[in-house]
Amino acid sequence: MGNIFGQLFVISTWGESHNGGIGVVIDGCPPKLPISESDIQIELDRRKPGQSSITTQRKESDTVKILSGVNEGFTLGTPIAMLIPNLDARPEAYTEMKEKYRPSHADYTYQMKYGIRMVEGGGRSSARETAGRVAAGAVAKKILKLALDIEIIAYVEQVHSIIMPSMEKFPTIDDVDRNDIRCPDQKTATKMISKIKEIQSKGDSLGGVIKCRIKNLPTGLGEPVFDRLEADLAKAMLSLPATKGFDVGSGFSGTSMTGSEHNDIFEIGADGIQTQSNRSGGVQGGISNGEELYFRVAFKPTATILQKQKTVSVNGEETELVGRGRHDPCVLPRAVPIVESMAAIVIVDHCMRQNAQRNSFSFSK
Amino acid sequence: MGNIFGQLFVISTWGESHNGGIGVVIDGCPPKLPISESDIQIELDRRKPGQSSITTQRKESDTVKILSGVNEGFTLGTPIAMLIPNLDARPEAYTEMKEKYRPSHADYTYQMKYGIRMVEGGGRSSARETAGRVAAGAVAKKILKLALDIEIIAYVEQVHSIIMPSMEKFPTIDDVDRNDIRCPDQKTATKMISKIKEIQSKGDSLGGVIKCRIKNLPTGLGEPVFDRLEADLAKAMLSLPATKGFDVGSGFSGTSMTGSEHNDIFEIGADGIQTQSNRSGGVQGGISNGEELYFRVAFKPTATILQKQKTVSVNGEETELVGRGRHDPCVLPRAVPIVESMAAIVIVDHCMRQNAQRNSFSFSK
Amino acid sequence: MGNIFGQLFVISTWGESHNGGIGVVIDGCPPKLPISESDIQIELDRRKPGQSSITTQRKESDTVKILSGVNEGFTLGTPIAMLIPNLDARPEAYTEMKEKYRPSHADYTYQMKYGIRMVEGGGRSSARETAGRVAAGAVAKKILKLALDIEIIAYVEQVHSIIMPSMEKFPTIDDVDRNDIRCPDQKTATKMISKIKEIQSKGDSLGGVIKCRIKNLPTGLGEPVFDRLEADLAKAMLSLPATKGFDVGSGFSGTSMTGSEHNDIFEIGADGIQTQSNRSGGVQGGISNGEELYFRVAFKPTATILQKQKTVSVNGEETELVGRGRHDPCVLPRAVPIVESMAAIVIVDHCMRQNAQRNSFSFSK
Amino acid sequence: MGNIFGQLFVISTWGESHNGGIGVVIDGCPPKLPISESDIQIELDRRKPGQSSITTQRKESDTVKILSGVNEGFTLGTPIAMLIPNLDARPEAYTEMKEKYRPSHADYTYQMKYGIRMVEGGGRSSARETAGRVAAGAVAKKILKLALDIEIIAYVEQVHSIIMPSMEKFPTIDDVDRNDIRCPDQKTATKMISKIKEIQSKGDSLGGVIKCRIKNLPTGLGEPVFDRLEADLAKAMLSLPATKGFDVGSGFSGTSMTGSEHNDIFEIGADGIQTQSNRSGGVQGGISNGEELYFRVAFKPTATILQKQKTVSVNGEETELVGRGRHDPCVLPRAVPIVESMAAIVIVDHCMRQNAQRNSFSFSK
Repeated sequence: MGNIFGQLFVISTWGESHNGGIGVVIDGCPPKLPISESDIQIELDRRKPGQSSITTQRKESDTVKILSGVNEGFTLGTPIAMLIPNLDARPEAYTEMKEKYRPSHADYTYQMKYGIRMVEGGGRSSARETAGRVAAGAVAKKILKLALDIEIIAYVEQVHSIIMPSMEKFPTIDDVDRNDIRCPDQKTATKMISKIKEIQSKGDSLGGVIKCRIKNLPTGLGEPVFDRLEADLAKAMLSLPATKGFDVGSGFSGTSMTGSEHNDIFEIGADGIQTQSNRSGGVQGGISNGEELYFRVAFKPTATILQKQKTVSVNGEETELVGRGRHDPCVLPRAVPIVESMAAIVIVDHCMRQNAQRNSFSFSK
Repeated sequence: MGNIFGQLFVISTWGESHNGGIGVVIDGCPPKLPISESDIQIELDRRKPGQSSITTQRKESDTVKILSGVNEGFTLGTPIAMLIPNLDARPEAYTEMKEKYRPSHADYTYQMKYGIRMVEGGGRSSARETAGRVAAGAVAKKILKLALDIEIIAYVEQVHSIIMPSMEKFPTIDDVDRNDIRCPDQKTATKMISKIKEIQSKGDSLGGVIKCRIKNLPTGLGEPVFDRLEADLAKAMLSLPATKGFDVGSGFSGTSMTGSEHNDIFEIGADGIQTQSNRSGGVQGGISNGEELYFRVAFKPTATILQKQKTVSVNGEETELVGRGRHDPCVLPRAVPIVESMAAIVIVDHCMRQNAQRNSFSFSK
Repeated sequence: MGNIFGQLFVISTWGESHNGGIGVVIDGCPPKLPISESDIQIELDRRKPGQSSITTQRKESDTVKILSGVNEGFTLGTPIAMLIPNLDARPEAYTEMKEKYRPSHADYTYQMKYGIRMVEGGGRSSARETAGRVAAGAVAKKILKLALDIEIIAYVEQVHSIIMPSMEKFPTIDDVDRNDIRCPDQKTATKMISKIKEIQSKGDSLGGVIKCRIKNLPTGLGEPVFDRLEADLAKAMLSLPATKGFDVGSGFSGTSMTGSEHNDIFEIGADGIQTQSNRSGGVQGGISNGEELYFRVAFKPTATILQKQKTVSVNGEETELVGRGRHDPCVLPRAVPIVESMAAIVIVDHCMRQNAQRNSFSFSK
Repeated sequence: MGNIFGQLFVISTWGESHNGGIGVVIDGCPPKLPISESDIQIELDRRKPGQSSITTQRKESDTVKILSGVNEGFTLGTPIAMLIPNLDARPEAYTEMKEKYRPSHADYTYQMKYGIRMVEGGGRSSARETAGRVAAGAVAKKILKLALDIEIIAYVEQVHSIIMPSMEKFPTIDDVDRNDIRCPDQKTATKMISKIKEIQSKGDSLGGVIKCRIKNLPTGLGEPVFDRLEADLAKAMLSLPATKGFDVGSGFSGTSMTGSEHNDIFEIGADGIQTQSNRSGGVQGGISNGEELYFRVAFKPTATILQKQKTVSVNGEETELVGRGRHDPCVLPRAVPIVESMAAIVIVDHCMRQNAQRNSFSFSK
């Protein structure tokens, strides 16, 4: 259960770290979208392991194959199945984990939940699972770009205690991807990378914050009361491995303002009604208001570290464990396309929902 | 759309601020639960308006009537419909809002979304809508208490910049409800109340943070990958009016720790496997690990203020508006039972899902 | 569980025969539909008890009250809650049923399923539950009529072994409602009514077949592979009390034709592509093809009879039971608006789904 | 849309006749079920083309590969992805269909629905799609057999006007599979096969009726009011290609009985409460009553015939078409495992739902 996401643009993901591969099926994708494997591959390459010295050295080309739903370069309206085979599996690296639960990993909870677990690579709890989300997200992004010129850009705003200065301009993907940490402020990026390398050399790890910004959203997306746009985004983000928090607009920092300071005053701009400030973050009453939508996602430091840690064995005895295997000292640069993908999937779904309720029928007569 | 929540314990809420009432239907409630209107009323009384000098003075008894699904004090397994009539509606207070969009309210977005809106009291965007959630939450809480001894306690941790000291002990409902602000630290509560009264006298408003804690959760709740326990809680919380953020466990503050500092070491305790620390917040890999689950919810300052504000009219002209009507200078004390209710609904649902997949079949032979 | 129907136009029904009433909440109804309680009441009056000498004599006005989702005569896009109170409840008539399971009723299965049941009137298993469906169906019918001029007409085609001759013309509601049995062939209607009165005098009951026809359906409705239009209609019909079968187009009788006899040849008509014959019944590959959609629903004879029957007691002893209480000797005339309602709900939902996937995005650029 | 089925045991199918293959993902399968590719293959072999002289001669081994969700022979509780590659695709056979709509096929409706279609093999509308259902059904069948000893057997009861005599005994799979038509009455089978061969030689086709019987069902399955067991079975069956009707228990033939003839009298048997007759077909009030559940499914004659037929072109001109390609003169023998599979999937889902609501909580204290 729990491997299906969305109401109308629905993705079903599957796959474990060390089994036949990772995949996703999209049900509900509109027909006649031009799409190719290379559209998908571009995004997968931003997520794939081994892309820089500060990511895990697992070697996976993460080459995607579209198995259905596309013909002669266009979607058919039928389910789009995509497959990303696992190549560089190293089951032997996990022998010790068979006997011992890794701290702050999902080994113990999976065992308790299912009464069985796949040890190699953490099985389904591996962040490798997110490749399926990125493949689906690439399709969603293309829909939004082609049909509505909506752009979704995420970037690393904070690593450990290094925080990027606030950025007025809406960044391009080139701004973000020009360095290994995916922080569009080059000075901050340099500091972040140094910090990661320092901590990496100690066998330790870091967390941080990703910011995501969305422009050209139409007004009216979001379904009160339970499926508010920010509620579905929050769920999407907290469904990602290693995430511990989400806020939108003024978020947690807005809690220490007064209403008169916080309210976004309406005014008339060149394109009609707009707000002077944007502490709402582009959503009011759960519905997009036409301003830029922005939110932040907190990622904990990677649980896998190469230091000796106390833990317990599957037999309930206290023991010690030294982390092995390949891992990311900081997941954030690879998480950037994942955050964008989940946001795109949520937005496409809400466009379809809004259209279904608002525009399916005309009562003019 | 968007007015139905849950997979197995499913609630459908309905109602506007100034129409026939507020209601909820629960589909999937287990049979043979002892329940009465007074069980529901206790929780509604904690949410109802006019309960203290720092809440809105709208007069609503919020008396609940169970219309179906219960017979002779026990649930039947069939849908439980509950109705809370609207009594103290004052449509005349909203004449000006017909013409002008209130800043940081949902007037504008509802109009853009639906092309029509109910002006009085904000219609469906009124926080009055949450009464239905609290009624359903009272049922969920009773299930959890009776069957599993699970307790869910929320309280106000922060108002504006006044923050409660950290609290070791798991508070009782009496600890929380003994003051009007629902902060279990009496000293902090006094400061919070003063601050609210001060800001209230200026016609302004405040926001803050609610903390929610859950004990006696069984291990194994949560459905990776999309329906992680914290993902569903995040969605539930961000679906509440005025919320802008959610974090679980170490949350945003955990992002500036290293992995070796952050990891929760497993150890053997009196009841078996446990963790030394609890920065995970009771969830690992999206699944409960048997430790206390805790999370925080950020509430923005109330959008309704009694000061003059610039805004625009429905005809697209700039104008001014003076807030009128009854409102809360700070929604947090009334939001405490709402947060608890949504948490309880999520937990009941996940207990049922876990049971369905794990225990529906035995393959021993 | 199981009290919610639909994907986008979603109805949640609730209520028992002898509790606070019967109700329904519609989530997803498009905004700005003109609707009033009298639109709903017209349909409820066609379903209500006591409308003729061949229906149950229970006295219920079945007066509907719209509690939310409508303002000044138009839908708001928010949930529409409707309530139909129970007035003429006679719990004392069910004393014997507390001790004995009625044959071919749901007393025994409800008890086994839930471990508890409401005896009076059969509780939730009462066909009185369908009033909520008819209320929602009235809204769906109005949407279809106003926006697309779609008409849905059902009528009684067969009672016991009395079968109406085939009817070329698409009947009007006046054709159907002009007699108590709702058979548009007046001669057959007379025979059916005589047969029902004869069997009624013996305390026995009859079943039959309802035919439903839909015209002006747009081409393209239905979602292969699981949510084919006829699959969702089949589910809707088999979800009605006392139904035992469904067929569409040539149905069971088409099974003894050859392919060359059965195929519907395409031709060019005044309005473009059409079929010469219509054995498909308006659906091909699960999708509407623009021809008239028609299907049949089989209803078993009413289980309640006024004759002495053998049965068993709740204590597992063999005993006898004489049916009491008010009941329909033949449910078909009252089932006509119910069949139409469920069909309308399915069609509205599929219009919204088709629109969401097909028209939410344009990829022209 | 519409390619996902089930509430708790959820299958997502994908794939076209002439693309990368056919597949299915199962989400919600209980953990620790022993399963292997050969368990799945046995069922796929019963559905695969070319298995006898009366089925299509397309050559597909339909070899299944399990890609995820299973480890060392046991399910993990995570999604099970299965892939069946397409091998014997012959796109050149479909050149003419690019220009002309085949009568009573889905060519025209797919084009109208999506504005695009895959011509080769009918794309997604090909019955080849059902291979994914059979793969999922094999898992469902194994669950039911191992955990509850539930057996589901379908067989061909009628081909054209040849009808099998009624069969008291619950047949075994060997009874069914011992002849090519899958009719357990050997004499009738011989007649059916002759009839098919006769019609095949004329380039024509036949339809018929499949009966499905289920034994050892627990009492209490089915969720009134919308998700009655028979309603979900009806939907499952009408979602199959070429089906036109469904009835359960006495079905259409029961409509000409009186209530006193039709009612199933309760009595006390060796195992407790049972019914003397079984016209209900194992369901009362939408819930299983512990008796054998049986239903019938009507299949129209195959639309593909090898005779010249009138039709229209995609440009809206009248033309002629001679059917080509490989096809089944009668789909029924290959449909037998498909019917069983869909029934098994529905039953597993309902077992999980019943368990979730009934047994997730105990309120003894």
